[in-house]
Amino acid sequence: MQGKMMIKVGIVGGTGYTGVELLRLLATHPNVQLEAVTSRKEDGMPVADMYPSLRGRVSLAFSVPEKARLTDCDVVFFATPHGVAMAQTPELLEAGVKVIDLAADFRLQDTAVFEKWYKLAHSCPELLKEAVYGLPELNREAIKGARIIGNPGCYPTTMQLGLAPLLKADVVDASHLIADCKSGVSGAGRKAEVAMLFSEASDNFKAYGVSGHRHSPETLEQLGKLTDKKVGLLFTPHLVPMIRGMHSTIYARLTKDIDNATLQTLFEDAYKNEPFVDVMPFGSHPETRSTRSSNMLRIALHRPNDGDTVVVLVVQDNLVKGSAGQAVQCMNLMFGLEETTGLMHVPVLP
Amino acid sequence: MQGKMMIKVGIVGGTGYTGVELLRLLATHPNVQLEAVTSRKEDGMPVADMYPSLRGRVSLAFSVPEKARLTDCDVVFFATPHGVAMAQTPELLEAGVKVIDLAADFRLQDTAVFEKWYKLAHSCPELLKEAVYGLPELNREAIKGARIIGNPGCYPTTMQLGLAPLLKADVVDASHLIADCKSGVSGAGRKAEVAMLFSEASDNFKAYGVSGHRHSPETLEQLGKLTDKKVGLLFTPHLVPMIRGMHSTIYARLTKDIDNATLQTLFEDAYKNEPFVDVMPFGSHPETRSTRSSNMLRIALHRPNDGDTVVVLVVQDNLVKGSAGQAVQCMNLMFGLEETTGLMHVPVLP
Amino acid sequence: MQGKMMIKVGIVGGTGYTGVELLRLLATHPNVQLEAVTSRKEDGMPVADMYPSLRGRVSLAFSVPEKARLTDCDVVFFATPHGVAMAQTPELLEAGVKVIDLAADFRLQDTAVFEKWYKLAHSCPELLKEAVYGLPELNREAIKGARIIGNPGCYPTTMQLGLAPLLKADVVDASHLIADCKSGVSGAGRKAEVAMLFSEASDNFKAYGVSGHRHSPETLEQLGKLTDKKVGLLFTPHLVPMIRGMHSTIYARLTKDIDNATLQTLFEDAYKNEPFVDVMPFGSHPETRSTRSSNMLRIALHRPNDGDTVVVLVVQDNLVKGSAGQAVQCMNLMFGLEETTGLMHVPVLP
Amino acid sequence: MQGKMMIKVGIVGGTGYTGVELLRLLATHPNVQLEAVTSRKEDGMPVADMYPSLRGRVSLAFSVPEKARLTDCDVVFFATPHGVAMAQTPELLEAGVKVIDLAADFRLQDTAVFEKWYKLAHSCPELLKEAVYGLPELNREAIKGARIIGNPGCYPTTMQLGLAPLLKADVVDASHLIADCKSGVSGAGRKAEVAMLFSEASDNFKAYGVSGHRHSPETLEQLGKLTDKKVGLLFTPHLVPMIRGMHSTIYARLTKDIDNATLQTLFEDAYKNEPFVDVMPFGSHPETRSTRSSNMLRIALHRPNDGDTVVVLVVQDNLVKGSAGQAVQCMNLMFGLEETTGLMHVPVLP
Repeated sequence: MQGKMMIKVGIVGGTGYTGVELLRLLATHPNVQLEAVTSRKEDGMPVADMYPSLRGRVSLAFSVPEKARLTDCDVVFFATPHGVAMAQTPELLEAGVKVIDLAADFRLQDTAVFEKWYKLAHSCPELLKEAVYGLPELNREAIKGARIIGNPGCYPTTMQLGLAPLLKADVVDASHLIADCKSGVSGAGRKAEVAMLFSEASDNFKAYGVSGHRHSPETLEQLGKLTDKKVGLLFTPHLVPMIRGMHSTIYARLTKDIDNATLQTLFEDAYKNEPFVDVMPFGSHPETRSTRSSNMLRIALHRPNDGDTVVVLVVQDNLVKGSAGQAVQCMNLMFGLEETTGLMHVPVLP
Repeated sequence: MQGKMMIKVGIVGGTGYTGVELLRLLATHPNVQLEAVTSRKEDGMPVADMYPSLRGRVSLAFSVPEKARLTDCDVVFFATPHGVAMAQTPELLEAGVKVIDLAADFRLQDTAVFEKWYKLAHSCPELLKEAVYGLPELNREAIKGARIIGNPGCYPTTMQLGLAPLLKADVVDASHLIADCKSGVSGAGRKAEVAMLFSEASDNFKAYGVSGHRHSPETLEQLGKLTDKKVGLLFTPHLVPMIRGMHSTIYARLTKDIDNATLQTLFEDAYKNEPFVDVMPFGSHPETRSTRSSNMLRIALHRPNDGDTVVVLVVQDNLVKGSAGQAVQCMNLMFGLEETTGLMHVPVLP
Repeated sequence: MQGKMMIKVGIVGGTGYTGVELLRLLATHPNVQLEAVTSRKEDGMPVADMYPSLRGRVSLAFSVPEKARLTDCDVVFFATPHGVAMAQTPELLEAGVKVIDLAADFRLQDTAVFEKWYKLAHSCPELLKEAVYGLPELNREAIKGARIIGNPGCYPTTMQLGLAPLLKADVVDASHLIADCKSGVSGAGRKAEVAMLFSEASDNFKAYGVSGHRHSPETLEQLGKLTDKKVGLLFTPHLVPMIRGMHSTIYARLTKDIDNATLQTLFEDAYKNEPFVDVMPFGSHPETRSTRSSNMLRIALHRPNDGDTVVVLVVQDNLVKGSAGQAVQCMNLMFGLEETTGLMHVPVLP
Repeated sequence: MQGKMMIKVGIVGGTGYTGVELLRLLATHPNVQLEAVTSRKEDGMPVADMYPSLRGRVSLAFSVPEKARLTDCDVVFFATPHGVAMAQTPELLEAGVKVIDLAADFRLQDTAVFEKWYKLAHSCPELLKEAVYGLPELNREAIKGARIIGNPGCYPTTMQLGLAPLLKADVVDASHLIADCKSGVSGAGRKAEVAMLFSEASDNFKAYGVSGHRHSPETLEQLGKLTDKKVGLLFTPHLVPMIRGMHSTIYARLTKDIDNATLQTLFEDAYKNEPFVDVMPFGSHPETRSTRSSNMLRIALHRPNDGDTVVVLVVQDNLVKGSAGQAVQCMNLMFGLEETTGLMHVPVLP
């Protein structure tokens, strides 16, 4: 009997929430062998000392990048602040290592836009051209052959999957889309910040970045590929007092006379073979918890008062389909594995 | 020295959240003497046994309506399910008692609309005509002379105060307004319902009633008074895992060429004398907790990407300005008191 | 190649939290074939309509017990109110079906005690004698051969595993044990109850049942098997505003001169081969979330001020190791499977 | 008519939770004139810009201490880290200003103990002798005449008020008291710390400092004044996922044959004239939310299984009776005001 494929995996920046989520998913992935988890600050500390949930499941210690021998890996995930991945990617590629960046370094093709929103000069614009945007439902074939993946932002994942069928079918006014989005607090990461303290964020609700947010240009760039119309998007993020979960409420004005059944069919057809997109019955109200800790994204359509606006509700776990899970889904595609491998967790409800 | 005015107050239905919130506010109101709190189920039980927060502060016991001698009161608040107030109001009015209904019986002038949305025949349509919609900022003079107040719904309060300056100035497209609203769970009341259990509603976020909600017709009726244009409103309520607080994100397309400073001035002028409406600096992100347990409502304006859409953010405590506090504000006006009497609580933050 | 063993499983009462948790665990168990999920009220409703988290994962519909053909199953789990399992168990046993009751019907050997605490006459006291208490760490061999399992209560699991090494080694005063225990709200089940509403239980903390709780007699009966001393236990449950998780803080006075290293060794030796009990380093503070959604239970010891009292901290997920997970662990043992089969979920943190 | 007394108040360190809570309470105190709120980092920033809840209610800006002219105040509150108050107190006293320190600088009489637990040398041990421990229920007369108040810690307030009647009556074994205490997260202050992030502290429960906590020596010192027996206290703090609220579960072994009614009378007599201590009926389960945002502390007694252990349940709002409210209560006493002035808020429930 031939041995099964084992992918040697490195993680750069394993101390944040996307890092520990990657560890949770990869610890039970049947084709993954964890080789290294890097952290500048925690060199030598067993990963399970920082995250007791991993006691007995991950025996690695954090190591500084210099010791981590990432070039021996088959793939390296970057769960780091923006700017780290682009600095290390050229050397990894040269060593034959594939790269999946969970931050924004490889999401935007336009470096001017990148530099405007992230306040960083892009250090390897020539690699940007071959970087692939890691949204399998819209980009599967390119992902399979990619060496570099720019893993989508959490909000953009919901906006694109919620709008794609409408834009492709050219049935809505693309110039005045509204996405009113709500995210759990883990989306802000594991940084010590007063605004994200329990006593600030609990029992509270607020919008933020209403006048402009980094996920707008990324979403606009991708939505633009789905239609030849000019895309205008008003994106309003809000902070919800829950750990995980994202809910996007998307408003689009119909430009064609189209009935609800046809709208529903547009979505069902678009996603009928997708293992991680669930189109619920027309008029449903998906709850974020129905996707908690899983890679599922759920969509439901509404047509209030049978008017000219379609409302698309989209939910996902921001740390899984919105980040680490999607990254593993890309890895599966890149290495020829069944796309769902290691990702079939049943959502934890309640 | 002349004694100060003491208003004899009765509360029908004191066991729900709006009831206990009325009790909290009235217990320290300097011109109120609590006469009776009725409950069919809890006859004889001291109010403070059900709500230990009131121990030592409210000495009344619940009594069945028959014993409560409500006709001896100066004003009776109904903190009851829809339909109760209209049944008892005629007798109270006849006895010279004023009525403030926190439910929907006197909110809608159109009985057909009422009956469609509340599935109840209206039992005193002739009284509807004299009922006054209790939103002081838009209706102050009428409230002063009213015998019957239909206290506004929580969502409608935010939508009206967030939209009024724009509609009055006729600067937005009234036919395609969108209000994406988020409410704390206390808005659902103190009914034993599975969907409102902690283990269901916590760490979760969802929309509900997207295809149609009772607060739409109420808001439409009132907004219609502010403009001669046809008003179209898409109202999407969501449930937030927090006890109190309401956040409305309102989208309106500008029809005039108007700069941000002028927009801001519209709002500041509209509310400059209002003790309970705070217009924050342009581009602010109000948090619901900044109004917690107080009668304040805060508003902030945004103009994303300097585009043609203005975004109005409105926050309030749904149980205070969204319900019991607004009712007390109306009572103050009806009895010639300073409007802020008993309502100057500083919000509890954190 | 020989086919792997497939166990035909029925669940009686699949609409509560222990029911849906069983479904979550069993849906990915490699040796389980779900045959029936019963519900009197929801006959015909697809399970995934009530629990959208199971969409695409569980295709069964609820059925009334009469149609469910439970006698064709290999094992039936009862996730029902107390009293249901004992009524149906005799018929199931006769048909050769094994029974695992997640309620209390088969936990107590003393029917008088059962009847006092549960206010129910026991309908099959003769079966009680062969019923096995389903705590694998203390009762593994008996479970392997059992036809009827009384699955332990959530609190008793933590108290027994936290005290067993101390009682067996006879180093503490067994007559004055104190267990100050804290549970997430899901422990109260999915009943529509005012006290468990989000707006009641959130941002709040309280004790309950301080003067006496059903889990005391169960724990006393089991602890009594570990020592020949008289056992006295003061058990104080509290309600924590979180969905899942249980934390027991146990106080025991040492009767022997014993150092901390020896205490620690007592626990490490006791659990060194246990896949689901993690003895953390002396002086650790385990968090409930480090076990969330997994079958792990973690223990840490403290000796404040080097005094004569040892403090044992125990955490688990009340719905997994405290209920459904433990039941599946028992099933694995009863059917000769590897004990950890289908139970190796990495805890979801954050 | 003579003008009412106005106390000129300064606050040092107004940016933390005890600071903003002082501001909330003092903003509506009828005898207080806020003179200065200091902050080294936020000099010039309006207080209401940091805390929008105070918009329109507090018009002061933060100022650096040098500009704040604290010596012109009648009283200065220190809502600062440990060590700040003792550095500034000598100068203030000399200028005739009274000092109320909400931190620990003046809580402990024994400087060696202070230095051991707070890792700071005490800079004015000679002032310690005249400092008064600010727990009015046990120390009222001394507070009235004090120039320096060491405001009690939050946990110690509950432990002392829960144990005082038992120790004074000499009916329990003082050498083995256990206090299992639970606090909301605001007790940790408004510091940017990973462990207090929403995504860490929410949906989670843990103990901390089990092997030793600063509030032990303070409590021991004070309890020692109530009895001539040697006091031994095992104090175990826990972190609850709620913003405000503290619940202490206290266990004491009875040394006298005493019935429950007598126990209850001990407490009722001890606190019958106390405006902020509520002794609930025997066997009650006080909830933290019944004190939320108010200065009330509630106590209830239990005697499980009619055994030899009495369980005392104590709840309070850790930021009010556990900190800022208690400080204002002391101020009222020091300036000859009615003790309840400005402190009669009805708890916010729900």
